[in-house]
Amino acid sequence: MKELESVLQDHFKLVFTDKSLLETAFTHTSYANEHRLLKISHNERLEFLGDAVLQLLISEYLFKKYPKKPEGDLSKLRAMIVREESLAGFARDCQFDQFIKLGKGEEKSGGRNRDTILGDAFEAFLGALILDKDLLTVKEFIYQVMIPKVEAGDFEMIKDYKTHLQELLQVNGDVDIRYQVISEIGPAHDKMFEVEVLVEGQSLGSGQGRSKKLAEQEAAKNAVEKGLDSCI
Amino acid sequence: MKELESVLQDHFKLVFTDKSLLETAFTHTSYANEHRLLKISHNERLEFLGDAVLQLLISEYLFKKYPKKPEGDLSKLRAMIVREESLAGFARDCQFDQFIKLGKGEEKSGGRNRDTILGDAFEAFLGALILDKDLLTVKEFIYQVMIPKVEAGDFEMIKDYKTHLQELLQVNGDVDIRYQVISEIGPAHDKMFEVEVLVEGQSLGSGQGRSKKLAEQEAAKNAVEKGLDSCI
Repeated sequence: MKELESVLQDHFKLVFTDKSLLETAFTHTSYANEHRLLKISHNERLEFLGDAVLQLLISEYLFKKYPKKPEGDLSKLRAMIVREESLAGFARDCQFDQFIKLGKGEEKSGGRNRDTILGDAFEAFLGALILDKDLLTVKEFIYQVMIPKVEAGDFEMIKDYKTHLQELLQVNGDVDIRYQVISEIGPAHDKMFEVEVLVEGQSLGSGQGRSKKLAEQEAAKNAVEKGLDSCI
Repeated sequence: MKELESVLQDHFKLVFTDKSLLETAFTHTSYANEHRLLKISHNERLEFLGDAVLQLLISEYLFKKYPKKPEGDLSKLRAMIVREESLAGFARDCQFDQFIKLGKGEEKSGGRNRDTILGDAFEAFLGALILDKDLLTVKEFIYQVMIPKVEAGDFEMIKDYKTHLQELLQVNGDVDIRYQVISEIGPAHDKMFEVEVLVEGQSLGSGQGRSKKLAEQEAAKNAVEKGLDSCI
């Protein structure tokens, strides 16, 4: 666990007081079952706790971030953020996959890269963290690891505005629609794109985003909204 | 809302700073829909938040209360405690049913006594409470309103020890098993029963509980455990 402790200290300034909590959070049932006589604890109980901590913090974040969104949208967005594949991704971002203790069979069959195992370990880690520290520490960790990706729109269910704009414009036959990058600002890991949508060579709107795809959607959205406004 | 404010102050020492949060928590969608022009907020967003707060506090409670229970048991127990019918019961205990604002149709069709509406309002109240105060205040409220019932065993999935004892004893044919109340202590609303289990007239064990049923189960459990010990 020494290497894991270094990762936590270097990247997240986290030092566990009770190292056994950390040990348990990274112990998969398959490992505990293989060493049954040693009575090693596995991470399922911590996962139960961590899951609830995560739900609350993400719910609180979404509730405050989107004061106008109805409950249904908040629930969908939360489900996207806390689903297994997302959590597995965060576990990989934190290099947690290297440190999970697996049984031999599980290791052989590729368990170390399985989303369920990684997602569960991520939740168990949050459970261990709230027990060793407090809710605020878990919140800070989540705001460092997860929220930037949420804010970058990685979990938005993008309504496909490009398709929508195309449908609106092509009611009376084919129309030439092109998207063109106007600017790219910022360093490689934190770039903002500005894109313009050209319809028959005329700019109908522009949009910004952290990827070309997001900026195109934003431009199309603006064009659609302008179009709707002019109809009212 | 004046009467609700009195109930909260008298029973729970709670005074809301932002009364509009309280108002929203007790406004059902049916009421908001009927007064659409007034743009009244309903309680669905607060319910989204309150649900997550409740899940965390109950998870934390169960995790610490039952250090040996596996995750599966904790999840089942949590589901029993936070399910709609349970929450509706807590809402009634708090007299919240009187204060929910319902649309006329919903009122006519008995909405004021519907578990969904009551349970949702209870969660929305918790959401309003964490926004107006903090997690600790919600925890204190839950420990006053919910945990005593949890501790009294209202949500335990009682393993049926009476049946189990009967099966053990009747392997070699019929045996006379009777349960007998030895004592009832305390006032009506907080009574403790002690029950003895008699097998062929001989006491095999006794148990205490907040109802006769729970005390009988406890007595049977003790008898079973004694029986198992004597086999080892």
